[in-house]
Amino acid sequence: MHMATKTEIIAVGSELLLGQIVNSNAQFISQQLAENGINVYYHTVVGDNPGRLKQAVKTAQERSNIIVFTGGLGPTKDDLTKETIASLLGRKLTTDEEALRSIEDYFVNVNRPMSENNKKQALVIEGSDILKNEHGMAPGMAIQTDGITYMLLPGPPSEMKPMFLKYGLPFFRKALGRNDKIISRVLRYFGIGESQLETDIQDLIDGQSNPTIAPLAGDGEVTLRLTARHQTEAEAVKLINDAEKAINERVGAFFYGYDQTTLAEELLRHLRQRGMTISAAESLTGGLFSDQLTAVKGTSDVFKGTIVCYTNEVKEAMLGVSKKTLEEHGAVSGQCALEMAEQIRKLTGSDIGISFTGIAGEEPVEGKKPGTVYIGLAVKGRQTETHQLLLAGSRNGIRKRTVKYGCHLAVKALTENTAE
Amino acid sequence: MHMATKTEIIAVGSELLLGQIVNSNAQFISQQLAENGINVYYHTVVGDNPGRLKQAVKTAQERSNIIVFTGGLGPTKDDLTKETIASLLGRKLTTDEEALRSIEDYFVNVNRPMSENNKKQALVIEGSDILKNEHGMAPGMAIQTDGITYMLLPGPPSEMKPMFLKYGLPFFRKALGRNDKIISRVLRYFGIGESQLETDIQDLIDGQSNPTIAPLAGDGEVTLRLTARHQTEAEAVKLINDAEKAINERVGAFFYGYDQTTLAEELLRHLRQRGMTISAAESLTGGLFSDQLTAVKGTSDVFKGTIVCYTNEVKEAMLGVSKKTLEEHGAVSGQCALEMAEQIRKLTGSDIGISFTGIAGEEPVEGKKPGTVYIGLAVKGRQTETHQLLLAGSRNGIRKRTVKYGCHLAVKALTENTAE
Repeated sequence: MHMATKTEIIAVGSELLLGQIVNSNAQFISQQLAENGINVYYHTVVGDNPGRLKQAVKTAQERSNIIVFTGGLGPTKDDLTKETIASLLGRKLTTDEEALRSIEDYFVNVNRPMSENNKKQALVIEGSDILKNEHGMAPGMAIQTDGITYMLLPGPPSEMKPMFLKYGLPFFRKALGRNDKIISRVLRYFGIGESQLETDIQDLIDGQSNPTIAPLAGDGEVTLRLTARHQTEAEAVKLINDAEKAINERVGAFFYGYDQTTLAEELLRHLRQRGMTISAAESLTGGLFSDQLTAVKGTSDVFKGTIVCYTNEVKEAMLGVSKKTLEEHGAVSGQCALEMAEQIRKLTGSDIGISFTGIAGEEPVEGKKPGTVYIGLAVKGRQTETHQLLLAGSRNGIRKRTVKYGCHLAVKALTENTAE
Repeated sequence: MHMATKTEIIAVGSELLLGQIVNSNAQFISQQLAENGINVYYHTVVGDNPGRLKQAVKTAQERSNIIVFTGGLGPTKDDLTKETIASLLGRKLTTDEEALRSIEDYFVNVNRPMSENNKKQALVIEGSDILKNEHGMAPGMAIQTDGITYMLLPGPPSEMKPMFLKYGLPFFRKALGRNDKIISRVLRYFGIGESQLETDIQDLIDGQSNPTIAPLAGDGEVTLRLTARHQTEAEAVKLINDAEKAINERVGAFFYGYDQTTLAEELLRHLRQRGMTISAAESLTGGLFSDQLTAVKGTSDVFKGTIVCYTNEVKEAMLGVSKKTLEEHGAVSGQCALEMAEQIRKLTGSDIGISFTGIAGEEPVEGKKPGTVYIGLAVKGRQTETHQLLLAGSRNGIRKRTVKYGCHLAVKALTENTAE
């Protein structure tokens, strides 16, 4: 397998041909292979039909030397990938005992009877390398024969992705004798637009190929993906470090974290580092801020609780915002945000109270424009801040960006006022 | 073109093979064709490489009688779709005067000079039907020859989708002599697994083709998509109504709504119908229930507010759960869920109080297994209910399904106890 790689990714599943789902698996695998210098020349999608699947495999055998399959490893009679390939290669299916045990364990765990057809998921093609499924039942497998490498992966992305990263990709790298190190790092920015960030570092993007610098925008954030390759990991890391330094000399003011982190996780990290706690009063955001904090594991040491005060009644009775403020300034006001933040801090006894109020809908409220948002930030021992924002976009876009701004402002308050 | 349709969708573009974008065009076209009873048997993705593209078209010519291309109609030298197909069909490219004028107009409009290679976009395959591009420059085209229909569409979804809906699909319907009406309806189910639902109605799925019944599972829900066709719209609707009735005679206990609705929206609808209000106490779900209600426009008439009580301290001090309950039963207990629901109802004065407590992480808590969830439901004038669930899956999967169960249980409580 030292010749030029010609990869074909075959997704098996009628639901793709009916347009019920999009072939995100092919995108994910392609991205990973591209980063590893393995050429992908074709994607194919074929339904749960043995004749057409067989024909598609034959076509792939003529034009490709790596064939990656996704889907069709499930328990139903529609799932035919293993059976079809085994028959084409003239091999038998045998039960993988480890996979069988893990399937049995699963049913014991959820306290449900295991049906006979679930055993089918433990069948593997004779003589194949097994790729363990740590997030589901059907194992993957890889077979090298007659100059072609076949890899079978499950269809659900939640099973396929971790299996491919942990077992699939290393299998290919080993088979191809790849021992250069490839290191990727994602730099995350908030508060700067994509075109501005690109303009600021265009010469860096154009001027270098190792690492490559790939910008991507989404959900009000911009990320830069740096990918370096070198014989040694230390050198690859150094290449990335140097590029990061050059980039952040220009746009570091907007940088907030690495890789898959989120603004909520960064806020939690900064709180934990300082042994501080937070609580929230959410009107506009209706629980989204709290949800994002608690979606992270082990948040209860720094997050105390929240009052979602969607009505003025709750703002007044439960949270203790003054009647006067609600009457004179309105619920969408800096004064209301200020009292919300201070009151929730007092009620929970946390170090920081944060509040969100504003207008996500399309109609003006209390004479204020749609998209008007107030964030209050009450930090122990400091004067309470309030921030006014004017955001554009959809109802949920505004709510999401408001939460991001809240995290961003809270991190700024923490890093400005206490030592790292 | 009255034989059985065998469609292949070929996307041309190296960016797809590098995983930079996902092939959403194939999904969109497939969905539209499926609704129109036109069979899609293959999706293919091939790069901007004339040799491989030519080969992919030859493969498609052998197995398909409709070939839809997306991409490769742009102005650069990488854009080869028209040229390759014209050469395979032995036809010339000629300038479409209308397309050329609209390209020239575009450049006048944006006040930029038109470069020579933009003229390339006005080239079309001789003898083809032109599909107007109302959202970009490159026109689409369709050619019927030797028993195969070729359709070329631009790659950017913002141009492709409106072109396909306005010109592409009508071209196919006309060519196939279709003048029937097509009506779709999605039925949504919760609380029943996909395999159980399929088993219960397998004979209905197998036994009829108009409407077709297509199950799809995801996020703990199952949906059935019914698609009927008839000469008249009224008859198509009747076919769907009859099928829905037959299906729901068996599994109606799990049915909750139509099309794009959500359990949260259904809960809001039932509350509004009865002029009732709700409030929540969220531990496990950390604000997610409230977020989902408030993500819907105009919720403040039925949703009062929430206490997110992520610590026992907040459960006791702010919500008023008794110290005794927390000590003797623990925070993850039916008794705690009961008090949480009753207390939040009392504090906000709402008609319903709902509560969520449980373990989403991987470690046991208070001697209870991961995935143990308690939902409390305090409804005005009734004895408070608590429900225990045992859920499997990831941390966020458990939180999301818990919220769905909460909505589901609250709707059940409403529909059982008050008239529709």
